[in-house]
Amino acid sequence: MMISLSRRLAAEFIGTAFLVAAVVGSGIMGERLSGGNVSLCLLENTIATGAGLVALILAFGPVSGAHLNPAVSLAGGMSGELPWAEAASYICAQVLGAVAGVIVTHLMFALPAIQASQHARSGPAQFLSECVATFGLLTVIAGCSRARPEAVAFAVGAYITGAYWFTASTAFANPALTIARSLSDTFAGIRPADVAPFIAAQLLGAFSAALFFRWLVRIPMTQAAESPPAGELGRAREIESQ
Amino acid sequence: MMISLSRRLAAEFIGTAFLVAAVVGSGIMGERLSGGNVSLCLLENTIATGAGLVALILAFGPVSGAHLNPAVSLAGGMSGELPWAEAASYICAQVLGAVAGVIVTHLMFALPAIQASQHARSGPAQFLSECVATFGLLTVIAGCSRARPEAVAFAVGAYITGAYWFTASTAFANPALTIARSLSDTFAGIRPADVAPFIAAQLLGAFSAALFFRWLVRIPMTQAAESPPAGELGRAREIESQ
Amino acid sequence: MMISLSRRLAAEFIGTAFLVAAVVGSGIMGERLSGGNVSLCLLENTIATGAGLVALILAFGPVSGAHLNPAVSLAGGMSGELPWAEAASYICAQVLGAVAGVIVTHLMFALPAIQASQHARSGPAQFLSECVATFGLLTVIAGCSRARPEAVAFAVGAYITGAYWFTASTAFANPALTIARSLSDTFAGIRPADVAPFIAAQLLGAFSAALFFRWLVRIPMTQAAESPPAGELGRAREIESQ
Amino acid sequence: MMISLSRRLAAEFIGTAFLVAAVVGSGIMGERLSGGNVSLCLLENTIATGAGLVALILAFGPVSGAHLNPAVSLAGGMSGELPWAEAASYICAQVLGAVAGVIVTHLMFALPAIQASQHARSGPAQFLSECVATFGLLTVIAGCSRARPEAVAFAVGAYITGAYWFTASTAFANPALTIARSLSDTFAGIRPADVAPFIAAQLLGAFSAALFFRWLVRIPMTQAAESPPAGELGRAREIESQ
Repeated sequence: MMISLSRRLAAEFIGTAFLVAAVVGSGIMGERLSGGNVSLCLLENTIATGAGLVALILAFGPVSGAHLNPAVSLAGGMSGELPWAEAASYICAQVLGAVAGVIVTHLMFALPAIQASQHARSGPAQFLSECVATFGLLTVIAGCSRARPEAVAFAVGAYITGAYWFTASTAFANPALTIARSLSDTFAGIRPADVAPFIAAQLLGAFSAALFFRWLVRIPMTQAAESPPAGELGRAREIESQ
Repeated sequence: MMISLSRRLAAEFIGTAFLVAAVVGSGIMGERLSGGNVSLCLLENTIATGAGLVALILAFGPVSGAHLNPAVSLAGGMSGELPWAEAASYICAQVLGAVAGVIVTHLMFALPAIQASQHARSGPAQFLSECVATFGLLTVIAGCSRARPEAVAFAVGAYITGAYWFTASTAFANPALTIARSLSDTFAGIRPADVAPFIAAQLLGAFSAALFFRWLVRIPMTQAAESPPAGELGRAREIESQ
Repeated sequence: MMISLSRRLAAEFIGTAFLVAAVVGSGIMGERLSGGNVSLCLLENTIATGAGLVALILAFGPVSGAHLNPAVSLAGGMSGELPWAEAASYICAQVLGAVAGVIVTHLMFALPAIQASQHARSGPAQFLSECVATFGLLTVIAGCSRARPEAVAFAVGAYITGAYWFTASTAFANPALTIARSLSDTFAGIRPADVAPFIAAQLLGAFSAALFFRWLVRIPMTQAAESPPAGELGRAREIESQ
Repeated sequence: MMISLSRRLAAEFIGTAFLVAAVVGSGIMGERLSGGNVSLCLLENTIATGAGLVALILAFGPVSGAHLNPAVSLAGGMSGELPWAEAASYICAQVLGAVAGVIVTHLMFALPAIQASQHARSGPAQFLSECVATFGLLTVIAGCSRARPEAVAFAVGAYITGAYWFTASTAFANPALTIARSLSDTFAGIRPADVAPFIAAQLLGAFSAALFFRWLVRIPMTQAAESPPAGELGRAREIESQ
């Protein structure tokens, strides 16, 4: 079943919008109800995000691969799974979807559509956290999608559920999400000034994971770009090109 | 294995009754134990509902498709998956099951069988929330059931777990459930006056999702009504009709 | 792969002991840490029990069917899936395992090995709750094991996670567990005097579910006793008898 | 697909490092946010650990078997699934990875890289708890990996989620993790003096489980060492040796 690029981009747009809603919306709801109990609020934020990821990847995986994350599309470009032009389109759709998602979320909670977050998240510990979080995310996706693509939705949802708590930054691990969160002055927000270092750390983590996994499964870098693509999207593309 | 309509309707009746019990009963239990901690109460409500959905869809999916939701049966009618006469019967069974479920739940907690809820849920933000919640639910079901019907139970349970927190209305997303919740003056209730706008928003969301997915998988609307049905129920019906 | 009765009984014994540990032990831990927050304690009790069930059924399902519950073995006897003599042996192993489990749990928490619970749980609402809880449990097992035996562990874990909250009795739904809980004067306990009505309600619920499901899948009662057994255990037995 | 020992060791190193991060990091985050609510903190610790295990085993299972635990590798050596020389290498990689994991975790939270824990965990109840916890873990792995290797990640994640609460020791059940936790003076720490008894109890539990399961599936001990290996790793090795 061939799926055209425009439809795959629509899936990335809608999927990323819902992912942002899950992250930002559950933070707003948690903050409203928790009366200052930040621990409980983050737990609710975690459960909503992890569960939302499972649902969204199960729903959109068969359409677009459900990247929902520029770091994943970049890694797909690096591995040759996704042509670079398509990877660039994916990233645009994700960023636009993320911004649309944060606006709709604010409207659902009767808040101003666009806000400037004042939530400071900076310093070397935050940088290291984002780097580790994204390295882990990309490693989990690469490891699981190669051998067990049907389980990727559960692996990603479970990984983020854990990483919200085991990194000091609550594991944004997604540049599109980071941009959208800078537009929300709520629980999940991030000060616009802190966005660039977060994204740099995420890209560093993603790049390291791509190199690590390439070595782990022993495919030389030059060959990888020409080899048949692996993973869920890869198999769809193979069928397409026959 | 052909399953007669009456048996499928019995499955929808019992399944929807248990779904209402999961939603309303866990709200009552949470409220009794939480001593005013609304945040913890909603978390418990969420976990019970999400887990209950997983169990009920795994159990009744092979019998009736486990719609348990008039919005899902309407979408099934629109897509041609379910004949309109059967869709109407499904909806009746769901509404009756939902009412039976709320009565039995009240009896389990030694409360009056039928109550009028005084929980106000109104305004444009609530309307938008229900519209988004139902759009997402139907999109998740359509995306997952087409390519991976065996995972629908997990996708729906995970989606609702997230949507309880990322919408301002706690994602009713189900007209039968909305009616039943208006009969319970407890945590999960909704004022009878607010039922109609909620259902209107849900139907708008469901209709939008059906149109979106029809475009996403590129089936022209005229052809869709005649095409072989997709999804779990669809495959069962194909086997039936051979 | 034929598995002898003695080995299957050992699996039921160990599995039920761990199930009791999950229920009683997590109640003790929750009570110790929660400082009177009953709501949080029940949530922890719920999560430990639901997760424990998933693990135990995945582990012991391939050996003995992982009934871990006399109500399930009785229903297996009624449906012809399990010979009555084996069902009786299963029930003995489950009760002995449950008692062993509560003793080991108390020792792990440095408490007296056997205690008399003083936790009153009585009245018609509790009776109805246990009846509904067990009806639902058996219905979920029957529905899921017939069409999707590989998902039974998840369906049962999810169902009990929900039922802890949507019944007023916190869904014991298991006579062996009920007996063991009467021997523990802790969070999960039940007064010995309340055991008999609980078990009666459970058996009533189980019997109703067996009748309901027999009708739902349209197998006449007389034929069912002779028909080839269904479900995970049933398939194992078919292979055995070849 | 043959995977060389060095790559499998890299997977064990990285995987165990992330497992330690999940356990220790989520304890630090929980403690910082929970304001002394130990119950909520342990719940968050539990959810992060259980979810992390699911993700890591899904990701690294296809590479190295995802033991991430010297007790599992020892049991693999005993059953003949893993040659003893490889089991020893696995254990070294796990211990080194665990230590690396605790250092990186401390850096992510801007804490001293290596600390001496002051968290006392001793006495017979703790010993029994670790013995039971590890017996259960190894039994769940053996039962599930033999018949349903694709579900091991979920079984292990679910088991540990339960065992955190139903044992008095919060179920370390892993010698490498125990060593790493002694290097962290935070929520998940253990006093260095208490490490040896914990590991002894874990090994006793693991050994008992290996004997129990060997009997349960009726393979004589002498034959087991020569028989074709079972489980996920075993099948990979069979393919390798053809």
